[in-house]
Amino acid sequence: MTASNYPSGSPRGAARSGPGPELDELAQSVGREAKELISHLYPYCRSLTGNGVRQTLAALKEVLPLSVHEVPSGTKAYDWTVPDEWNIEDAYVADDDGRRIIDFKAHNLHVAGYSAPVDARMQRADLLAHLYTRPDRPDDIPYRHFYYRDGWGFCAPHRLLSELTAREYRVVIKSTIQPGHLTYGEFYIPGSAPGEILFSTHICHPSLCNDNLSGIATAALLARDLMRVPPRYGMRFLFVPATLGPLVWLSRNEHLLPRIRAGLVIAGVGDPGPLTYVRTRDGGLHVDKVASHVLARTRPGDALIREFAPKGYDQRQYCSPGFDLPIGCVMRTPDGEYPEYHTSADGLNFVTAPALAESWKLMRLMAGILQHDRRYLNTSPKGEPRLGPRGLIEDADRLGMFWTLNFSDGRHSLLDIAERSRNSFWDILDGARRLEASGLLTAIDDEDSGS
Amino acid sequence: MTASNYPSGSPRGAARSGPGPELDELAQSVGREAKELISHLYPYCRSLTGNGVRQTLAALKEVLPLSVHEVPSGTKAYDWTVPDEWNIEDAYVADDDGRRIIDFKAHNLHVAGYSAPVDARMQRADLLAHLYTRPDRPDDIPYRHFYYRDGWGFCAPHRLLSELTAREYRVVIKSTIQPGHLTYGEFYIPGSAPGEILFSTHICHPSLCNDNLSGIATAALLARDLMRVPPRYGMRFLFVPATLGPLVWLSRNEHLLPRIRAGLVIAGVGDPGPLTYVRTRDGGLHVDKVASHVLARTRPGDALIREFAPKGYDQRQYCSPGFDLPIGCVMRTPDGEYPEYHTSADGLNFVTAPALAESWKLMRLMAGILQHDRRYLNTSPKGEPRLGPRGLIEDADRLGMFWTLNFSDGRHSLLDIAERSRNSFWDILDGARRLEASGLLTAIDDEDSGS
Amino acid sequence: MTASNYPSGSPRGAARSGPGPELDELAQSVGREAKELISHLYPYCRSLTGNGVRQTLAALKEVLPLSVHEVPSGTKAYDWTVPDEWNIEDAYVADDDGRRIIDFKAHNLHVAGYSAPVDARMQRADLLAHLYTRPDRPDDIPYRHFYYRDGWGFCAPHRLLSELTAREYRVVIKSTIQPGHLTYGEFYIPGSAPGEILFSTHICHPSLCNDNLSGIATAALLARDLMRVPPRYGMRFLFVPATLGPLVWLSRNEHLLPRIRAGLVIAGVGDPGPLTYVRTRDGGLHVDKVASHVLARTRPGDALIREFAPKGYDQRQYCSPGFDLPIGCVMRTPDGEYPEYHTSADGLNFVTAPALAESWKLMRLMAGILQHDRRYLNTSPKGEPRLGPRGLIEDADRLGMFWTLNFSDGRHSLLDIAERSRNSFWDILDGARRLEASGLLTAIDDEDSGS
Repeated sequence: MTASNYPSGSPRGAARSGPGPELDELAQSVGREAKELISHLYPYCRSLTGNGVRQTLAALKEVLPLSVHEVPSGTKAYDWTVPDEWNIEDAYVADDDGRRIIDFKAHNLHVAGYSAPVDARMQRADLLAHLYTRPDRPDDIPYRHFYYRDGWGFCAPHRLLSELTAREYRVVIKSTIQPGHLTYGEFYIPGSAPGEILFSTHICHPSLCNDNLSGIATAALLARDLMRVPPRYGMRFLFVPATLGPLVWLSRNEHLLPRIRAGLVIAGVGDPGPLTYVRTRDGGLHVDKVASHVLARTRPGDALIREFAPKGYDQRQYCSPGFDLPIGCVMRTPDGEYPEYHTSADGLNFVTAPALAESWKLMRLMAGILQHDRRYLNTSPKGEPRLGPRGLIEDADRLGMFWTLNFSDGRHSLLDIAERSRNSFWDILDGARRLEASGLLTAIDDEDSGS
Repeated sequence: MTASNYPSGSPRGAARSGPGPELDELAQSVGREAKELISHLYPYCRSLTGNGVRQTLAALKEVLPLSVHEVPSGTKAYDWTVPDEWNIEDAYVADDDGRRIIDFKAHNLHVAGYSAPVDARMQRADLLAHLYTRPDRPDDIPYRHFYYRDGWGFCAPHRLLSELTAREYRVVIKSTIQPGHLTYGEFYIPGSAPGEILFSTHICHPSLCNDNLSGIATAALLARDLMRVPPRYGMRFLFVPATLGPLVWLSRNEHLLPRIRAGLVIAGVGDPGPLTYVRTRDGGLHVDKVASHVLARTRPGDALIREFAPKGYDQRQYCSPGFDLPIGCVMRTPDGEYPEYHTSADGLNFVTAPALAESWKLMRLMAGILQHDRRYLNTSPKGEPRLGPRGLIEDADRLGMFWTLNFSDGRHSLLDIAERSRNSFWDILDGARRLEASGLLTAIDDEDSGS
Repeated sequence: MTASNYPSGSPRGAARSGPGPELDELAQSVGREAKELISHLYPYCRSLTGNGVRQTLAALKEVLPLSVHEVPSGTKAYDWTVPDEWNIEDAYVADDDGRRIIDFKAHNLHVAGYSAPVDARMQRADLLAHLYTRPDRPDDIPYRHFYYRDGWGFCAPHRLLSELTAREYRVVIKSTIQPGHLTYGEFYIPGSAPGEILFSTHICHPSLCNDNLSGIATAALLARDLMRVPPRYGMRFLFVPATLGPLVWLSRNEHLLPRIRAGLVIAGVGDPGPLTYVRTRDGGLHVDKVASHVLARTRPGDALIREFAPKGYDQRQYCSPGFDLPIGCVMRTPDGEYPEYHTSADGLNFVTAPALAESWKLMRLMAGILQHDRRYLNTSPKGEPRLGPRGLIEDADRLGMFWTLNFSDGRHSLLDIAERSRNSFWDILDGARRLEASGLLTAIDDEDSGS
């Protein structure tokens, strides 16, 4: 898996293009590459901290030149504190014959995250008190952890219980919990105008593909695509452990927050369900309008919009009242609403290249509108200017030029005009650029636009 | 009928409790007591003024220590003037045998209110010109009056006409109309914070149970319950003759009007129809939101909401543009929309203890939210604070704590948060109190809240 | 066709009356007169400029004393310039026998507007390059023009092509295109209060009845009716060539624009479709509310409302962002949505007296509400004033007087009150006048009202 799979295309075209066959083709290619990247990252044992996160970020560096930050244990982030770092080398439950009944090497999920080290022989009953299964999902290993509390545990398919017939077992967890660091990745594409757009995805889950290797892979490939053309607004990508990661980043970067014009939390974007957008806390911000515009143009039933709720992914932190950032969330089936959620069934077969491709494409379109939407002023606002002598009349209707002329009064952005005229943003944008080239429109300064 | 029937319960618990079996049980008991009180008050001949009103208020003093105000005839109240006082001792229509064909002693409704004194023999035709019946309700005595105009009249079931076969009748009304007073009752429960809540019910109708002994009885029993715990906002209960009563009270208490945060006119709350709430003139005030929240949680079809209209009960006066008070109206079937309205069929069998109980319960819940709704500030607003170490995590979801934390930004009251999260106000209130006890919320000063 | 056909009626009554049999009867008479006027104007060859326009305006002077303005060629109007004037005397395509195959004298539409002069013999193929037909409407002559570009052309029914079998034809257009004037008509009825209402209709189309002799005739007859009573606000009627006409008027009258309180573009109001109102650019202005109120009271399905779009008639110019005037558009079937549009099928049989009558009546009602809507103040705002002693109580409910008293708080106009109470504006107006006569209402000064 390297970036060389990536089709070159036209740099400017790629960054500016709207929907169409070219973007569809690019998205299909990206979808396949995302699936490959997920397969590559699947074996690393990620957690809130530790080497699995570092390995993941190192692999992402092959896709884009992100920075890796190390934050020492004990660092405060508002109501939270970075815990000691957890690492694990091996773990198993073995019977008297030394046969590994449960083996961490077979699947990362077999050991609950942040399990304390153990090396003991124990009675079956004592083992069972530390063994987590899901009777409703007898073939799947559940995902459990001991964040911010002491303990240890194994996770296994429920059907395994019937095989645990011995009186006593050898139980080994070769883990360490000691002062170290919380690790996260950050990648910033500088823009030409003040302001930036934030994308955030969580990297703490081990060997779960939809939640959230899908987010990691599509975010990285989105960043790689967007960096090819210098954007108007800066674009920042965060690869952070859930909950604590955003809070650590926020606590270290409060000076940046007034710059954030919009943002998306990206998580669970590879499953077969339709794309879902969760609105910002306000619900009527620019990013909400952008997402609505893009999702309304997918196939019917292929996209859903939900109101903000203080649950779900890291928008909980970005949208807490002390920050109240203009950040929505893109996912497919919401967390907890698919049966594979937080079990080993969320594996490599659960996420598909077409789903990843569609998610990437829709996020790509959202990023494009967030970049290119702005307000213009009609420089000939009294009556309709004559488009014929300017060579614009033939495309005027197709590109909604009369709408753009009429509503470029300083109050309406191109997206507002697209919505009001029921045109695609991209057609309105094309028309506006032609009108601007003819001198009939003049852009309003960046700092005032896009609200 | 005495207050001793009333279950004692826990004073604080009763005043603060939300919906649940305890309140249901209390309401059933109150409903039965209201029906008893109605039976006790039914015989008094109430009118715009007079001794029937005084007798009614004296009986209410057994329930709660209200003040009785006497306002002299001739007193101005805006466009209106307190008329001479009307009292009646006896009245009848008798045939030559002295047999009373129509007898005021049999039913107060037989004589139109404010009928002038009469003592005459008259031809059948002359009597009929003063006899009011309802051909569409042949068995019922209609309710009529001569407020603000001269005249007299008898009211009788339409079927009686066929029995009036004599040529001549003795017609006697032993009434007086002379300078006196308009009488009304007032009861005030002082609060700890600035502001008060007004409840108003009309006391002028004779021997009509739904309109409005039901309002008189439930308002009195609501006041008696609410006075047991010192409330946050003062609560004022007015027992006033319709139309003129509110205007007299308003004209004498204009200094109090800025203190009124919310209010309810209570009338016709004992019939079998579903509860109806009529919005304030504005339609989107706090009391409107409170009523909507409470009514949305009754059984489907058991509650209805109407827009304000300048008709109906005394909200006409409170919501006239010169006052524009934040006062809605609670009733069951709206006035004039049930066939028994303003006839003797609105008697003791028309109002039921269960209907009175439900009305009382819903008004009790509205009063509770009006008292307890307020805004809080999240003291740890950057990110979600850790609820686990504070012992709050187990009840967090049930009591909507993450919603309350997220939206306690100074703009949203608990009721706003309950509506947004689709929780019960009372669960949100419980959660907020636990968060407040943990130091995660701090209440905003009374004078700013609840709007 | 003279004004003498017009029923005299009561001058004040006619100008003030709302819906009812009297207005219906008047409208039927006006509808028949409009149809006569259309027949009279049909033969004139109107265009953007020229004598056909002058003849039309001269004929309208028989209906109302309008002013005729002549604006020289070369005059600038924003992005536009008044072109040279076009006149035509004769035109035909003749075969070798001198037989006129296509003859301008038979139908104005046979020559494209602004065709340059031609006098030549030409091959059939060369003629066909200048011959416009509509294969989808084989029996109709299409309407074409060469505004703002050089060229010439004939228009004919498509079925004629099969008759053009000769090798060569004589082609003659006796036209002139030379410096002259753009001509438009204007009629102003002064008002007693500041502000005016604008009506605009286009006069450039030749021998098309719905588009727009219907607008010309109904506008003229509306003006004639409205001038009979001195109005509150001035009323200005413009009879202008489309697009350029409004821009020329606007460029010469910018000082008047702040006076314009409301307006209607009138076009295509004689076809059998239901009446359509197109909202202003804002969509929620007074004229929009007025039109909605009037149209909601026509027969179901007989009226439709559309949002503003920068297409259609001259509202495109009045509502361009540099003017943004409060002007809507009244038409029946929208332009381009009926198959007869811009063909000779839009002839004398296409427009009917009943359709013209209904359009006129609804515009008449809109004009009436625009004139008479205003805000009042309740002079007895504390409580309901006593209507009985003032002799108002009997009509109070029918005329919505309690609504008017309650909402005459300085914020609501009579139209607002009519909408809120679901009454007719005219009933509310009647009630308000009676309340005003009783001293219970006082009108708010013109300059503040009606917004």
